[in-house]
Amino acid sequence: MKSEEAFLGFIDEFFPNKHDFLVLGRGDDCAVLKADKDYCVSSDLFLEDVHFRRDYFSPADIGYKALAVNISDIAAMGAKPVAFTMDLMAPADVDDDFWREFLKSMSMLARQNDIVLAGGDLSRADRIGVSISIFGVSGSTGFIRRGNCSYGDILFTIGDIGLARAGMMSLEAVGEKARETLPAAVMAHLRPKPKIMIGTLLNAAGVKALMDVSDGLARDLPRLLGPDLGADLTLDASMLNSNVITFAETIGIDPVEFAVLGGEDYALLGAVSPFEAGKAESVPGFTRIGTVTRTPGITLNGQPFTAEGFDHFSQ
Amino acid sequence: MKSEEAFLGFIDEFFPNKHDFLVLGRGDDCAVLKADKDYCVSSDLFLEDVHFRRDYFSPADIGYKALAVNISDIAAMGAKPVAFTMDLMAPADVDDDFWREFLKSMSMLARQNDIVLAGGDLSRADRIGVSISIFGVSGSTGFIRRGNCSYGDILFTIGDIGLARAGMMSLEAVGEKARETLPAAVMAHLRPKPKIMIGTLLNAAGVKALMDVSDGLARDLPRLLGPDLGADLTLDASMLNSNVITFAETIGIDPVEFAVLGGEDYALLGAVSPFEAGKAESVPGFTRIGTVTRTPGITLNGQPFTAEGFDHFSQ
Repeated sequence: MKSEEAFLGFIDEFFPNKHDFLVLGRGDDCAVLKADKDYCVSSDLFLEDVHFRRDYFSPADIGYKALAVNISDIAAMGAKPVAFTMDLMAPADVDDDFWREFLKSMSMLARQNDIVLAGGDLSRADRIGVSISIFGVSGSTGFIRRGNCSYGDILFTIGDIGLARAGMMSLEAVGEKARETLPAAVMAHLRPKPKIMIGTLLNAAGVKALMDVSDGLARDLPRLLGPDLGADLTLDASMLNSNVITFAETIGIDPVEFAVLGGEDYALLGAVSPFEAGKAESVPGFTRIGTVTRTPGITLNGQPFTAEGFDHFSQ
Repeated sequence: MKSEEAFLGFIDEFFPNKHDFLVLGRGDDCAVLKADKDYCVSSDLFLEDVHFRRDYFSPADIGYKALAVNISDIAAMGAKPVAFTMDLMAPADVDDDFWREFLKSMSMLARQNDIVLAGGDLSRADRIGVSISIFGVSGSTGFIRRGNCSYGDILFTIGDIGLARAGMMSLEAVGEKARETLPAAVMAHLRPKPKIMIGTLLNAAGVKALMDVSDGLARDLPRLLGPDLGADLTLDASMLNSNVITFAETIGIDPVEFAVLGGEDYALLGAVSPFEAGKAESVPGFTRIGTVTRTPGITLNGQPFTAEGFDHFSQ
């Protein structure tokens, strides 16, 4: 890929430049998004050797996950993604085949979710990096925020916790062999599934608070609760994917504790009033994990739980 | 700066989290922007050793320019910026003082333009990198696009061409000494001034096409004209900043040719009908550079001009 123009040709090959929400598409100083509804907006980085490794992520995995983690932030608002912009860092030694697979895979995920690529930038860099900003809209029930919980609310997750971390640690430890021993965990790390439909159903079901679990339940739960409330969690191994149990036992850690520490789960974590929980409980994957308490602090199966999930930044 | 939380504290110190266009601010999975008017959207990368060097860019220069180049894309639509998101790559060896100066300088530019920081992401990386997405709105006259020119239209620039490139090349060649010999050129490279007010005036004045000159006039003019039209340019050295003339003569290149090749000018380039040029001509800095011709191809002072401005990506 010798020039910016050649790369833009690639982009046009895979990404349509029309969408109901796009008044003006790629190719001008700015794209223009229609002012139909309020837009929710999120930005995420996806960087080589920080968030992924070329050792075990295929070009298609990288293209997929860079967009998937952004879609997940839209799902956590109970919203639907419509458009994104992408800033791409492209080392000179990465060949055309890599970018073709990367863009093809990303474009398939975009098409599945009816999201248009509305612009971006391209630059040389030492390592591959993707910065995506994504835009979503919601239906008549608006967006679901964090921090809107009350004492007695039911806490729930949808999606596996700890599974992606088991996959990542296993890939780091034994490489490709992990695909045979822990296939679900490896896929949870390489190809997290954004939960747009689930988020929309939870929104219609009247849940009070919702967020994306990206730093692990232990770190993210206090962010859902805010500074004034706490939680009593009740979790047992039967609620976990068997790959989490296998991996945690291999490294000699209690599987429930491993799952709660988690990281990059891209599960949804929410709260719903016990008086209005019926509809939410019927959403596929709804797993009750505990209740909101009057005072700050978290207990796990009756024991104070103070450990922190991982901090991508300090590590 | 030891943790993501500490960095977010820094951000909150410098950037307010309220704005007329912000329904929900930083701190949730997404921010929410009000659906008042169509939004124009642009994204740009600003990377260490590609777009800037720490040798001669101060932390305040880096923070300023990372946002300024994005604001310039909004100016080129004849629009007004309202919000931006920032993904930041932060090497472990960059200290708190650096980030304080970086954020303070960026926040001053944001405040001057009434732009709110609506979210972002933070990650470790080997080199400093900034990816910004910016959102703007326009008045009753809408957005000014590219490619809307006709035969006979007057072509104009507002802002110095070639000046930033003279500054960059001089800083690369002689380092800090360049500040004494070519102060205007150095400032054009370190602190380009986004032309929001000018863009708004040009919009009200009814110009037909407008764009941001970021890759040099020679490369960007065909993008303004589109595939079916050309241009006859008439430029002489009296239209150039004296620093461009000094520098071009030092390296033995014709100053006009050097200026037309340019790069990172962040000047505005536009077209206006000769029958409606009166208002546009009175906008400060309006410099007539030529006219649109019936067939593709550019002439400069009567000679065919085929040289290309620089391609950030292929170099």
